[in-house]
Amino acid sequence: MKEIMIEILEKPSLHEPILIEGLPGVGNVGKIAAEHLIDELKATKFAVMHSKFFPPQVLVNDEGVIRMVSNDFYYYKHKGHDLMFLAGDYQGLTPEGQYELAYAVLEIAKQYDVKRIFTLGGYGIGKMVKEPRVLGAATSPKLVEEMKALGVVFRKGEPGSGIVGASGLLLGLGVLQGMEGVCLMGETSGYFVDPKSAQGVLSVLTKILDVQIDFSKLENKAEQVDKLTTQIKEMENPHADSHFDDLRYIG
Amino acid sequence: MKEIMIEILEKPSLHEPILIEGLPGVGNVGKIAAEHLIDELKATKFAVMHSKFFPPQVLVNDEGVIRMVSNDFYYYKHKGHDLMFLAGDYQGLTPEGQYELAYAVLEIAKQYDVKRIFTLGGYGIGKMVKEPRVLGAATSPKLVEEMKALGVVFRKGEPGSGIVGASGLLLGLGVLQGMEGVCLMGETSGYFVDPKSAQGVLSVLTKILDVQIDFSKLENKAEQVDKLTTQIKEMENPHADSHFDDLRYIG
Amino acid sequence: MKEIMIEILEKPSLHEPILIEGLPGVGNVGKIAAEHLIDELKATKFAVMHSKFFPPQVLVNDEGVIRMVSNDFYYYKHKGHDLMFLAGDYQGLTPEGQYELAYAVLEIAKQYDVKRIFTLGGYGIGKMVKEPRVLGAATSPKLVEEMKALGVVFRKGEPGSGIVGASGLLLGLGVLQGMEGVCLMGETSGYFVDPKSAQGVLSVLTKILDVQIDFSKLENKAEQVDKLTTQIKEMENPHADSHFDDLRYIG
Amino acid sequence: MKEIMIEILEKPSLHEPILIEGLPGVGNVGKIAAEHLIDELKATKFAVMHSKFFPPQVLVNDEGVIRMVSNDFYYYKHKGHDLMFLAGDYQGLTPEGQYELAYAVLEIAKQYDVKRIFTLGGYGIGKMVKEPRVLGAATSPKLVEEMKALGVVFRKGEPGSGIVGASGLLLGLGVLQGMEGVCLMGETSGYFVDPKSAQGVLSVLTKILDVQIDFSKLENKAEQVDKLTTQIKEMENPHADSHFDDLRYIG
Repeated sequence: MKEIMIEILEKPSLHEPILIEGLPGVGNVGKIAAEHLIDELKATKFAVMHSKFFPPQVLVNDEGVIRMVSNDFYYYKHKGHDLMFLAGDYQGLTPEGQYELAYAVLEIAKQYDVKRIFTLGGYGIGKMVKEPRVLGAATSPKLVEEMKALGVVFRKGEPGSGIVGASGLLLGLGVLQGMEGVCLMGETSGYFVDPKSAQGVLSVLTKILDVQIDFSKLENKAEQVDKLTTQIKEMENPHADSHFDDLRYIG
Repeated sequence: MKEIMIEILEKPSLHEPILIEGLPGVGNVGKIAAEHLIDELKATKFAVMHSKFFPPQVLVNDEGVIRMVSNDFYYYKHKGHDLMFLAGDYQGLTPEGQYELAYAVLEIAKQYDVKRIFTLGGYGIGKMVKEPRVLGAATSPKLVEEMKALGVVFRKGEPGSGIVGASGLLLGLGVLQGMEGVCLMGETSGYFVDPKSAQGVLSVLTKILDVQIDFSKLENKAEQVDKLTTQIKEMENPHADSHFDDLRYIG
Repeated sequence: MKEIMIEILEKPSLHEPILIEGLPGVGNVGKIAAEHLIDELKATKFAVMHSKFFPPQVLVNDEGVIRMVSNDFYYYKHKGHDLMFLAGDYQGLTPEGQYELAYAVLEIAKQYDVKRIFTLGGYGIGKMVKEPRVLGAATSPKLVEEMKALGVVFRKGEPGSGIVGASGLLLGLGVLQGMEGVCLMGETSGYFVDPKSAQGVLSVLTKILDVQIDFSKLENKAEQVDKLTTQIKEMENPHADSHFDDLRYIG
Repeated sequence: MKEIMIEILEKPSLHEPILIEGLPGVGNVGKIAAEHLIDELKATKFAVMHSKFFPPQVLVNDEGVIRMVSNDFYYYKHKGHDLMFLAGDYQGLTPEGQYELAYAVLEIAKQYDVKRIFTLGGYGIGKMVKEPRVLGAATSPKLVEEMKALGVVFRKGEPGSGIVGASGLLLGLGVLQGMEGVCLMGETSGYFVDPKSAQGVLSVLTKILDVQIDFSKLENKAEQVDKLTTQIKEMENPHADSHFDDLRYIG
């Protein structure tokens, strides 16, 4: 069996596409952001990636129909640069799998002559934040400056532990292939899925990409998570005031 | 050393065989069901699979004789479709091993032109059930409807976490090879081996396959497990009434 | 780098050699037994096996000199059948490594036309035993009978969990190569290294192989371990009588 | 993707170079020592090694710029023997990765005709030491004597558990390639990074290599760590006297 199997659904002709990655991770920020963008732009799926580096299981949809775990490629025709998306169910289970999957994604990206990559993720800070900032890291000082001008926050020592997984490796391995890139990280507690942080990431990214999308579905999801976390806090501590507290104790 | 070694004992000529898999898993439901069917039909072993993805050990029988850990293939000549079975001691130890073993099984299945697969397993629900339902998941909406008509239960959101291991991968990877399939999952507590749940799965499966078998051995085993679990409950809680309680605390 | 590297020191000409394996395991019984036999017979080392399946470290001797972790082959010229030994520092770290190493050992064994293998190990029973029995498992019913006649104990249901590691795999994989074999397991608590159990295994094995050796070094080691365990028991329970107690609580 | 990717920045012509390795490990002694030596000698980076055996992540510098995890080679032209250094962010994550990376480093070393290797590390002793000794282990008795004459301490039974990781494997695998070598281990508590122990290792090593360097930066770092550990001890035990206590309870 091949380690990574790529099923091609369509071979679109793309003009200088930009790759945008959002896979599961801290607060699922990257995955939520990428999938919202794909849905709102009605992007087209063109390739499906299966791999023995993913969990050995199938998923079952609401109708009882089975499908393999996958990472999926989408495209969207856009003025200037077309967009290519990578979203999916899981990241690779092992370090070796992570490297191999990132490498395989870049092989596809190279075929379409991708020169720039945005990877999306969450930056766990261990407490609730009202206005999550969008932190950045980039593959060159020039790109850091370009992103600063577009509202991305760069802070010395953040993220101190580097960027783990696909969002990091696609950029690191991408440089070796002549691609440049930026990781956009939405601040998040790290305890819950965080659509609000995803929205923050998307407001920066859509400005950079010059696309307009509706955020109402994301806002609805964020409200639902807010209600849930408020309920949890009230159960834990009925006399707490209304400030956002450090929720580190939930762990 | 080859990752997977297949020893061929016989090369039967099979007519449009259906593959039925039952390996160890939740409540050992799939393994018990498949082995009971193999025994009652007196199916013939025709291939043995060894692999370095299995535990690095040998098993010793009651006479002191050693044998390698294996997964085994059986066949049974039947009107309409012949039957092919996969049963054995263990599943693959690693995610990668799970994928490779499922792939190797499908290679054998392809040689015999298998077009339909039934995988058997348990669905752990964390408490004792008097009348375990048989839940299903299938590779197409058409097959879901077909199974519903035959008494298989499809419930939205079940199984929520997908189907892990051989029972899932054989179906997921099978689709990529042009095979269709169904997973039949007997409800089970998940705390004990569960012959009653296996019997439930088999009453549905034998109807689908149009075979008649005797269930008395399975019923005996179920009674023994029932006695044992009743004893355990009485030791734990001497004044409990006779209802089947939530046994989640045993964990 | 090759997964397994074999350094040949000498290419002895051996007559129908019997392979005897003793590597680290439960109570180190197999390793102690094999190394005592090698020392007493003054067997000659003829091959050294290094592998990335061993721990990534070097060992340092009392003079401060480094050597790689290894498994080593020895031979001893003997009437009837010559003897070949496998002893060493570690077993493979992973299941896959265990399979690959056992396979590589059998490749060497095949070159020397080995037809019979004895693997030595401990059988952990969770309590101290005054007179450890030597249990057996073999690759055929005929060999079981042969071993019974030589004093090896075969008990239904023992060992219930099979034989894990090199002592099992060499026999299981050996059968696939046309070799027959026996595993000799000395009963041991499983809490301490156990030279007395190793001596029990060797008294059976030397009778089978028809070799005479001195056991005094092994007896000295056994006395030292006895003293130590007696001291530990007295510290734990100063008023205990002198019987060998169940030491399961030490775990 | 290749398991190990080596990016060549420069192909220096080196005269009988000596390889010096210092990677992360106990107290980070080896890494601190090697990096201090590289900095003080202003050694030149000539090769960068990436690998899927390293953690699947990128590092971000203070300016927000990303780089892949790596191990790096440096050289320094010196009278008699030139020097080659190996330093970096991580060691391999798995045993197999450790072996493969050490093997790849030796392939580079062979190209430059390296005949002698010094590996640097810490020797964890579980308590604070005022004057850390520098213990050694070497690939031959002759080299042990040579090192003793230069002030390296060799003590029977130390290190009892061998030398784990790159510092061990480079020497063990190096012998198989005809290289000789020494591991220099600075005593350290094992609870903190330990620049003082690194300084101890370097005072011995610089004497061996006949290079002069400034130690003031290392002394400053050691003072900072000293202050920090003193503060921690005072918080833990305000009435403790000024002796260096056994700090094993910090674990």
